[in-house]
Amino acid sequence: MTAIEIGNDIVIVDIGFAFPTEEMPGVDYIIPDSSYVEKNKERVRGVIITHGHLDHTGGIPYIMPRLGNPPLYTRNLTSLFIKKRMDEFPHLPKLDIRIVENNSKITLGEIAVRFFGVTHTIPDSMGVIVETPYGLIVNPGDFKLDLTGVDGVPTEQEEKTYEIFSKEKVLLLMSDSTNIENPGFSVPERETHKNLEVMIKNVRGRLFIGTFASQLERMLKIVEIVEKYGRKLIIEGRSMKTNMEIAQLAGMWKLKPETVISMQDAGKYPDDKVVILATGAQGEEFAALMRMANRTHKFLRFKKGDTVLLSSSIVPGNEISVQKLKDNIARQGAKIISYRTSDVYIHSSGHGNRGEIEWLHKQIKPKFFIPIHGSHHKLRQHEELALELGMVPENIVVPDNGMVIDITDGGTKIHALKENVTNRIVMVDGMGQNNVEEVVIRDRQQLSQEGMFVIIAIIDVRTGKVRKSPDIISRGFVYLKDSQELLHQARLLAKRKIEESTAQMHPINFDYVKNVIREEVGRYLFQKTHHRPIILPVIIEV
Amino acid sequence: MTAIEIGNDIVIVDIGFAFPTEEMPGVDYIIPDSSYVEKNKERVRGVIITHGHLDHTGGIPYIMPRLGNPPLYTRNLTSLFIKKRMDEFPHLPKLDIRIVENNSKITLGEIAVRFFGVTHTIPDSMGVIVETPYGLIVNPGDFKLDLTGVDGVPTEQEEKTYEIFSKEKVLLLMSDSTNIENPGFSVPERETHKNLEVMIKNVRGRLFIGTFASQLERMLKIVEIVEKYGRKLIIEGRSMKTNMEIAQLAGMWKLKPETVISMQDAGKYPDDKVVILATGAQGEEFAALMRMANRTHKFLRFKKGDTVLLSSSIVPGNEISVQKLKDNIARQGAKIISYRTSDVYIHSSGHGNRGEIEWLHKQIKPKFFIPIHGSHHKLRQHEELALELGMVPENIVVPDNGMVIDITDGGTKIHALKENVTNRIVMVDGMGQNNVEEVVIRDRQQLSQEGMFVIIAIIDVRTGKVRKSPDIISRGFVYLKDSQELLHQARLLAKRKIEESTAQMHPINFDYVKNVIREEVGRYLFQKTHHRPIILPVIIEV
Repeated sequence: MTAIEIGNDIVIVDIGFAFPTEEMPGVDYIIPDSSYVEKNKERVRGVIITHGHLDHTGGIPYIMPRLGNPPLYTRNLTSLFIKKRMDEFPHLPKLDIRIVENNSKITLGEIAVRFFGVTHTIPDSMGVIVETPYGLIVNPGDFKLDLTGVDGVPTEQEEKTYEIFSKEKVLLLMSDSTNIENPGFSVPERETHKNLEVMIKNVRGRLFIGTFASQLERMLKIVEIVEKYGRKLIIEGRSMKTNMEIAQLAGMWKLKPETVISMQDAGKYPDDKVVILATGAQGEEFAALMRMANRTHKFLRFKKGDTVLLSSSIVPGNEISVQKLKDNIARQGAKIISYRTSDVYIHSSGHGNRGEIEWLHKQIKPKFFIPIHGSHHKLRQHEELALELGMVPENIVVPDNGMVIDITDGGTKIHALKENVTNRIVMVDGMGQNNVEEVVIRDRQQLSQEGMFVIIAIIDVRTGKVRKSPDIISRGFVYLKDSQELLHQARLLAKRKIEESTAQMHPINFDYVKNVIREEVGRYLFQKTHHRPIILPVIIEV
Repeated sequence: MTAIEIGNDIVIVDIGFAFPTEEMPGVDYIIPDSSYVEKNKERVRGVIITHGHLDHTGGIPYIMPRLGNPPLYTRNLTSLFIKKRMDEFPHLPKLDIRIVENNSKITLGEIAVRFFGVTHTIPDSMGVIVETPYGLIVNPGDFKLDLTGVDGVPTEQEEKTYEIFSKEKVLLLMSDSTNIENPGFSVPERETHKNLEVMIKNVRGRLFIGTFASQLERMLKIVEIVEKYGRKLIIEGRSMKTNMEIAQLAGMWKLKPETVISMQDAGKYPDDKVVILATGAQGEEFAALMRMANRTHKFLRFKKGDTVLLSSSIVPGNEISVQKLKDNIARQGAKIISYRTSDVYIHSSGHGNRGEIEWLHKQIKPKFFIPIHGSHHKLRQHEELALELGMVPENIVVPDNGMVIDITDGGTKIHALKENVTNRIVMVDGMGQNNVEEVVIRDRQQLSQEGMFVIIAIIDVRTGKVRKSPDIISRGFVYLKDSQELLHQARLLAKRKIEESTAQMHPINFDYVKNVIREEVGRYLFQKTHHRPIILPVIIEV
């Protein structure tokens, strides 16, 4: 999520979300910290969404209401994706979505904004041009170049799209660094389509194709190929079905009614007539391919003779899950063709490689440059590329979340302010009604590593004596059946420590006594188990 | 861990451990399920350890005592690694370690066993040859070929090592599948050494080198280069220091006393004289590089002008941690050279690529084949390679943990039994005195995702009424400060449900009442938060 502020007007570009890392158990999404724009919401003239992927749209249901629902500008397919998602938040006010086209020009407050079509993995992806008195701010969004082949030559159409920048003064380029580490040019999507066609045509036995549900262009192509060769298609996985429905709604998918069959009918056709398009190529726990691999899917199992084509790269962090997926498919005797071991390209990234990024810089020739999209180290590598291309270090700012970057002195200087705007990690879960606070996450971390240990003691207030032996409830700490002696000693220790500390105490200071128990029992348990469960003393006075 | 059983004798090869995946919070290691050999321990004639890495030695302290400490055979350096680790388990009986050499021949029960030296990343790595009446069983352990260059030609020494198999009948090959997915030949370690030498020689500013502490050969080479160019060396990170001490003990490291300096003295030398060898290239949370990157290291910080060389690949599962490491190093302005983006090879794997694996098969020409070491999908790919090389499917068994593979009919048939031996996932943590039971892990998982919710109610046994409002203790569930109304309603609900269920009940069935609370309060909390904390009702009667 980026805010561009000129004079009294603010324009926002994209409101995405990220998935949590393993240190954030029980969290569903991380959304941008929108405090600054919330405080200045009366100056937000519009929100522009470059394309329909969740890393650019996912924060919308959480953040738009906090901004008082300013108008949202995007292209048709993206708008359908956003609307579909809003259906899951029926309590929220309706968005004010306004459709724009590739060459639309709109005015937000006093800011003129234009758009241009870019190549990505989903139709209707667009770049944004913001006009300023000192030149254009250009953000192509997620992009790759549409190349004629694997040789890195852009198509005529692509050349034409970017030609406009040769005639205009570009003040600032903000651009994608995702694949800066990949040398040369990306594999054209049409190369992947060609190879998929050969495989669909020639495969014997059932063909399972796993890909990202976000790879809409590829899925549409697969449907086309399946129809061309008279195969039957099963689409399996909620997000994939939803996305295909949206494509149909947008008129991008004209399907013969007999092509798509239900899972239950798969057995009615010869194996080599059946193509199954499924989610879960990242080894997501409950996605279709994973359920089939784990034999928990209601209808489909892998068998010898099946071919499973994983038409996707592995998103960093998913390596172990994908390995499990492949292992369990392999155990059932199916053949796996994956991106890495395939002889031909069966996946192409939606982001341009270093060669395309370089081409873009040469085409746009910006005065200033801010690398965006990618881990910080990638942004730095993108900065190095810009320096190699002749930019001076003073004209580049490598951003971090929350950074405020000022262009001053009549568009001649760029610099980052020392003070960031508020920039917390905002975690949401469940219904997303409340943010997940850090203290809750810290507790979850400790609970997951060490478990918990509740000690309940009943004290006679007059004597300070503990009635009976204290009760203990513990989960996630030790295996209780094997730990009777440990629990017994912990009870004795708690009782003794309580009575020692209450001996001369009138009235009883319960917080003090609880602290004593936490410390003494904690030390004892650590000594015996090398674990530090969360210790929760409960003292009841009777 | 593999057991080879011939007649009345059992020989064990390697006792490693694995690291837990994220679904096993708070677990330190996964060790082999040794139930079968425990039950048959009086027939275990010896344990052979092929080399000193933890995936081949890590289970020793846990499992050897359960086997009654049979003699352990290994080479000198490996024995030092094992002894060092045993120091952490002072309560265990001393191991009976017997040193063997590359060409030793020992007899275990009636089984003759020989060894041969293999190339890996740690000295004293060896392969195992077990003699049977029907031919040899050969297991080279973790191996790559010592190649003369990047062109895939083995050295004369390596040719000679494997020549022995051309003259002998090999019944069974069991061999490494780790890098089966990498085409061609691996990069020779000496190629990496050559490139590291150029970098150490030419770098301006401080040079940090991160690598695996297990890459002992490379670390020894780095020390040699550092001395050659008159640089000073700081070794930082416990496992690296320990491993270097072991190398010294083995006489593999003859160090000039002035070469290694302490961190505190780093500032006394010009930056380009200082080389820092550190752990943490995998982004391990508390390892040296990570602490420096996070600015939590006591003495060292990165700064502009530093170069950080990550001389390692990324172990699957560590991608996100390594990304964080690189990001935080990049933020401090240091230059990062990583395996993937370097122009030259700065890391080489210890496992042979497909080309070397193929070479091995051709050299050994086994009758039967069992692919080992690697995820199941890799084992299957290794099987495919063997088929391509002309083996017949009946002569290959792709194993899984716990599988019993029988060679019968005078060494003419191989097959897997239908029944496995016991094969649980054995998790150990802390002192490893007890296994971690699955129920504890399941609780930890739920606690980490959903948190916990303790309800404490005091009941008057005579009236069945709840005294005061029940107490609630909750952690890892919701942010309590923001959830007062939720807690209030939960208290009211619990009180009402208890009193409803005890109304006509004499005597009070506490288990029943607790179940009611768990269900009713659970349902209410899920409705409001979409979370299912572990609910722990405590009912105290007065």
